[in-house]
Amino acid sequence: MLGEILENVRSKSPLIQNITNYVTANDCANITLACGGSPTMSDGEEEAEEMGRLCDGLNINMGTLHPRSVKAMLLAGKSAGSCGHPIVLDPVGAGASTYRRKTAEQLLREIAFTAIRGNISEIKTIAGGGNSSKGVDADAADAVTDENLEKTITFAKDLSKKTGAVIAISGAIDIVTDKNHTYIIRNGNPVMAKITGCGCMLSSLAAAYLAANPDRRLEAVAAAVISMGLCGEKAFEKMESERRGNASCRNYLIDEVYHLTGSELERGAKYELR
Amino acid sequence: MLGEILENVRSKSPLIQNITNYVTANDCANITLACGGSPTMSDGEEEAEEMGRLCDGLNINMGTLHPRSVKAMLLAGKSAGSCGHPIVLDPVGAGASTYRRKTAEQLLREIAFTAIRGNISEIKTIAGGGNSSKGVDADAADAVTDENLEKTITFAKDLSKKTGAVIAISGAIDIVTDKNHTYIIRNGNPVMAKITGCGCMLSSLAAAYLAANPDRRLEAVAAAVISMGLCGEKAFEKMESERRGNASCRNYLIDEVYHLTGSELERGAKYELR
Amino acid sequence: MLGEILENVRSKSPLIQNITNYVTANDCANITLACGGSPTMSDGEEEAEEMGRLCDGLNINMGTLHPRSVKAMLLAGKSAGSCGHPIVLDPVGAGASTYRRKTAEQLLREIAFTAIRGNISEIKTIAGGGNSSKGVDADAADAVTDENLEKTITFAKDLSKKTGAVIAISGAIDIVTDKNHTYIIRNGNPVMAKITGCGCMLSSLAAAYLAANPDRRLEAVAAAVISMGLCGEKAFEKMESERRGNASCRNYLIDEVYHLTGSELERGAKYELR
Repeated sequence: MLGEILENVRSKSPLIQNITNYVTANDCANITLACGGSPTMSDGEEEAEEMGRLCDGLNINMGTLHPRSVKAMLLAGKSAGSCGHPIVLDPVGAGASTYRRKTAEQLLREIAFTAIRGNISEIKTIAGGGNSSKGVDADAADAVTDENLEKTITFAKDLSKKTGAVIAISGAIDIVTDKNHTYIIRNGNPVMAKITGCGCMLSSLAAAYLAANPDRRLEAVAAAVISMGLCGEKAFEKMESERRGNASCRNYLIDEVYHLTGSELERGAKYELR
Repeated sequence: MLGEILENVRSKSPLIQNITNYVTANDCANITLACGGSPTMSDGEEEAEEMGRLCDGLNINMGTLHPRSVKAMLLAGKSAGSCGHPIVLDPVGAGASTYRRKTAEQLLREIAFTAIRGNISEIKTIAGGGNSSKGVDADAADAVTDENLEKTITFAKDLSKKTGAVIAISGAIDIVTDKNHTYIIRNGNPVMAKITGCGCMLSSLAAAYLAANPDRRLEAVAAAVISMGLCGEKAFEKMESERRGNASCRNYLIDEVYHLTGSELERGAKYELR
Repeated sequence: MLGEILENVRSKSPLIQNITNYVTANDCANITLACGGSPTMSDGEEEAEEMGRLCDGLNINMGTLHPRSVKAMLLAGKSAGSCGHPIVLDPVGAGASTYRRKTAEQLLREIAFTAIRGNISEIKTIAGGGNSSKGVDADAADAVTDENLEKTITFAKDLSKKTGAVIAISGAIDIVTDKNHTYIIRNGNPVMAKITGCGCMLSSLAAAYLAANPDRRLEAVAAAVISMGLCGEKAFEKMESERRGNASCRNYLIDEVYHLTGSELERGAKYELR
């Protein structure tokens, strides 16, 4: 089933509109191409309504916010939503400033997101519970572990109920859940926290997977998370064997997505579905 | 002659002002350095007039438009034009939104471009004929083939007559033409459509080649297109032999431009001049 | 001592707020991660005051200026300054336009910088003396050589006295000085001038090194400059042995920072302290 989800992306080549930050936009575009999607990148409010309508999926990323891009997010989010296109929210650094927190609240109020993906600190901020964070990284005290796994799943399910969105929490253990079912995913590698934009790239990927698999939302997001983690593992191996560092590893990660097949994804996936 | 054009870029190191998008700006800067040019990147209207005047060549790219950058384009375009500096237009996604279409029209009305480079759907939009496109990629139905080659050349020549610009159409077959003569170029590799910004990078390259060869406009643009295609071929070979993907291929492409010599360019060029 | 400075960055993982350009932001974020820091990238005036307060160090880079980002720089600079956080200024292309020159003047008037890092032409512009420059590259006539070394050191010391900042001048010979002591550094490789953003990345690195070593300002900036030069040398060797070009070299440079140890830094450093 995971493999089929990826293959649908490659065969349908969905058009993914990314309203995203200027730091990782290039990597987001290249990973969207790597998985078989067709990216457009633009934060102009002048074309946001139209782009939201014409795309197959929309990815909204809060990495480098400004009032104009927020307007574009709202316009594109509403038009994409009214057309039934899936919409992903990546609340980058939601707890890092008051402006980000308030913007996240506004986006959640005005747009019906299909999926929300972030690290645990970002997702806690979204849920209104947490306000600790250090920049754009998760607070170590928040980390999802085997000890707090049950509690975190319950928290994520509740947030899914409240928002109607699939919730994806990235970390050493990844959680992807809707109100009923949960994927607990153990793919990935710690080096990914040393590559800027791994989260952003994953959100672009999730938008592409969702757009090509509109009727399997939970599975599509889980497949994106597993793809990213698996490709991160492979990229790390290549990095180690060639004595590279985080910059080359970023390229290898996208390279691995470029070559990933459905059957490899099936074989490499490490998850439990509850 | 192609080789001499490249060598002029390396010896003169022209200063190329790029008003471009935030997605591929880094790659555009690095490829400009790779070919021997000196890039400046800025979209501030506060300095646009001055930058247009002080540069040796100007590259205007519509990738991530907003009203401020459009003002910068108009100011820089006019000052560069009045100083006789070559100006390239890359109408990224010209048909993807009304805002882009209208902006392209305005730029063409107010600036005398030396060259216009885009995919076939973008160039058709520029010509006022086409309005089909899917995001920033060319519509498959528009693709230049051996079957419609004659018709496409006539179309491009007409557009060159109308605009006074060298017209470069990128695709499996590249066409570079003025009102009299046409280069039909068969360098390149399909992987280039899987690397974000190949078009953007080519436009930066064209601006550098033009700035260093102001009296040979058609040849300069053709040499840039051939250089890009040839380096794309070499990068693809390296990607394949090392089992990499599109992200590494992007680096290899710029690397190849860095090492390209005039004689290699002569030897590797696959074109017909009519 | 140099080694200890790097190790402090790795152990303390300072949060570095970068208000920087959209051309090299990704590389700046990845090199900050590579050295052990935690980068945030944002130019929103809406959150600038708060980000300046919450960070451990601030890096202000003039690469792609616009009035909104200038406001963010002023707000963040003041709040970071009032909290005692180190602040780096990278006056990219300070002499390339009137707008940049005036903005640099305003920033220097209103913010107490801990360090100012640029090429010789940029630093001369900052000092009010020079106005020759070609885009963002140093004017060849300005280059620091063994012949004009004494004069340049005196000039840089005077600027340090005037501004209270550590002055770092990048070039074939690097100078890092306060009003009393000077590091004359001979690490580095000419290929670094062919990689966009080497200066920007160094300034991000300097901000991280300063934030983790607040009581050794001169040494921290010198250690950052030496780290960058040494990693540039190693990256060049790798580039040559693998027949790559400037784009791969950029990745290798960041990779080398990722792996750099304190003892390697000590061993590879080529400098004289006066």
